[in-house]
Amino acid sequence: MSKVTDLLGSQYPIIQGAMGVICNPELVAAVSEAGGFGLLATAFAEDVEAVREQAKVTKKLTNKPSGANLFMMNPLTENFAKVLAEEGIRTVTVSGGSPKALIPLLRDLGLKVIVVVPTVEVAKGAEGLGADAVVAEGSESGGVQGFKGVSTMVLVPAVVDEVNIPVIAAGGISDSCGYKAALALGAEGVQIGTRFIATKECIAHAVYKNTIVAAADTGTGLVNMLRFQIRALRTTLVERLLKGQESSMPDFTWQAMEDSWIKGDLEAGVLPAGQVAGRISTILSVREIIKEIVA
Amino acid sequence: MSKVTDLLGSQYPIIQGAMGVICNPELVAAVSEAGGFGLLATAFAEDVEAVREQAKVTKKLTNKPSGANLFMMNPLTENFAKVLAEEGIRTVTVSGGSPKALIPLLRDLGLKVIVVVPTVEVAKGAEGLGADAVVAEGSESGGVQGFKGVSTMVLVPAVVDEVNIPVIAAGGISDSCGYKAALALGAEGVQIGTRFIATKECIAHAVYKNTIVAAADTGTGLVNMLRFQIRALRTTLVERLLKGQESSMPDFTWQAMEDSWIKGDLEAGVLPAGQVAGRISTILSVREIIKEIVA
Repeated sequence: MSKVTDLLGSQYPIIQGAMGVICNPELVAAVSEAGGFGLLATAFAEDVEAVREQAKVTKKLTNKPSGANLFMMNPLTENFAKVLAEEGIRTVTVSGGSPKALIPLLRDLGLKVIVVVPTVEVAKGAEGLGADAVVAEGSESGGVQGFKGVSTMVLVPAVVDEVNIPVIAAGGISDSCGYKAALALGAEGVQIGTRFIATKECIAHAVYKNTIVAAADTGTGLVNMLRFQIRALRTTLVERLLKGQESSMPDFTWQAMEDSWIKGDLEAGVLPAGQVAGRISTILSVREIIKEIVA
Repeated sequence: MSKVTDLLGSQYPIIQGAMGVICNPELVAAVSEAGGFGLLATAFAEDVEAVREQAKVTKKLTNKPSGANLFMMNPLTENFAKVLAEEGIRTVTVSGGSPKALIPLLRDLGLKVIVVVPTVEVAKGAEGLGADAVVAEGSESGGVQGFKGVSTMVLVPAVVDEVNIPVIAAGGISDSCGYKAALALGAEGVQIGTRFIATKECIAHAVYKNTIVAAADTGTGLVNMLRFQIRALRTTLVERLLKGQESSMPDFTWQAMEDSWIKGDLEAGVLPAGQVAGRISTILSVREIIKEIVA
C-alpha cells in the first residue's frame, strides 16, 4: 500500500477528477470498482438532497471507497460536506479557493482532505492548514484555471520538493506513459479527468466524447471568465469567445451544463477538457483504461 | 548507443538548448566535454564571421562534437549553415519557422537536421521534409513561443505517437527527475536550456543567473511580440509589459540582449527563461548538472 492508496482506500493511486454534471454515479462507481477512486462532483449542485441522492446511488453500485469534490465557490459546501460524511464518504478533495474556513469542519466530520493546488505557494499553504495530501494540477488540465498556471512537468516536482505530504499529479495524464512520468516526477498518485469523459460509463453526450476523440493536441483554449479561465475544447462557440466575437460567455449554471455536456447542445455552453484530449482517440470502458495505466 | 547519441555523436542524449547571445563557446564546449551536446546560437548573429569565430573557439576548447541552432527568421541562415559545415559542425537544430527551404541545402552540406516543433502537425511536417529527429518543445519552455502551445506532458507522447523519427523532449526539464519523466513519455533524449544559464560557464550576467535562482514556479510570464510570444522572467520590465504599462517591448537586437543578458541591465531587455526556473536554486558547473541528470 502506498501512502495515497492508504489515504483513499483504493487498490491504485488513481483518482478520477471531479467534472461538473457528468460525474454520474455509474462513472464514479466504475472507477472505484476498477481499483481507482471515483469522485462525485458537487461544484454546481444546487441542493443538498441532490448530493445525498448521488452518494446513495453510488453506494448501491459499489462497496468500494469513493469520494467527492468540494468546490469553495459553491455557498453550500459545508452542507454538502455534512451529507457526504453521513453517507459514508471518508475522503474529499477541495478546490476552487482556500480551504481554510472549511478544513476544521471536515476534520470534525472525520473526513480526509486532499487539496487541489496550482502553485507551490498554495501547496505549502494547504500543508500548513493540515491537508492530508495535495493534487498538484498543471495548467494543461481541463476546466477551471488561474492566470499564473504552471505545467505538470514543473509543478509536480516543485511541489514534491517543498511539502512533506503526498503529492498527486494532475494535468496531461491519460495513460500508462503519463502515469509513469508522474511517478518519475515524484508524485505518489495521479488524478485523471478528461480520459474518463471518453468512456462508456460517463453520462456525457456522444458529441462531447467525440469532440475529445477528434481533438488535436492544440484542440483546447483558455476562455476568460474574469476571475478565472476555463480550458475547453475549441468548439465553434469557444473559437468565437477566443476571438472576442461573443459579448459574453454563457452562464455556467447546472442547466447550461446539462444542455451542453449531457444533451449535446454546443451553443449552450463550453465543453471543458485538458490538452490531453489530443492524445485520446477511443471511447473505452473505465476498466480498460485503468488496466492499461497500471499494466 | 541510442538513436539520438548516434545522431549527435555525444555520450548522452542531452542537448543544451540554443539561447541568444549567451551560448558562449566556453558553455557549449563544457556541455560537450561533460558528455552532452552543446549548441551555438546564431539566431541574432549579424554576420557570418562572428559565427565562424564562435565555432573556431569552441573547437579549440573541445574535440567532442557540438552543434548549432539555425533560426529561420534570421535572413543569413543559409550563409551560417555553410560556415558551420566548413568549421566541422555535423548536426544542427532548426527553429523559428518552416525549415522547408533550408533542408535541401543542409543535406547538400552533409548536415544532420533536428527540427524544433511546438505541435504534432509541425512534427509530422518536419518528418515529411526529411528531418533526422525533432525536439518536441513544450509551452513551459523559455524564449520564443507560439500562441497554441502544448505542454511537454502532452506534446511529447503525442509526437511520439505520430512520427517514426526520434523525439527529443524540451520544456520543464532541469534534472534527473525531468529526464526520467521525458524518457517515460517516449522521448529518446532531452534538450535543456534554462538550467544551463545558471552555470559557472555561462557568460550570462550574475543578475540573470540570480533571477533564475530566485524565481518561483510562477516566476515567468509570456510577453506578447505580435507574431509570437517570449517566455521571460518576471522582472519589473516584464511585469510592466504584462500589465500593458509599456507602450512597446524593447527591440530584440544583439545590443539589447548583450546589455540585459550579459551586462545585467534589467531595463534594456527581457530575460528569457522556462517555468523550470522555479526549480533551479543553485549555480553549478555544467559537469555537475549532467552528472546528476544521468546518475
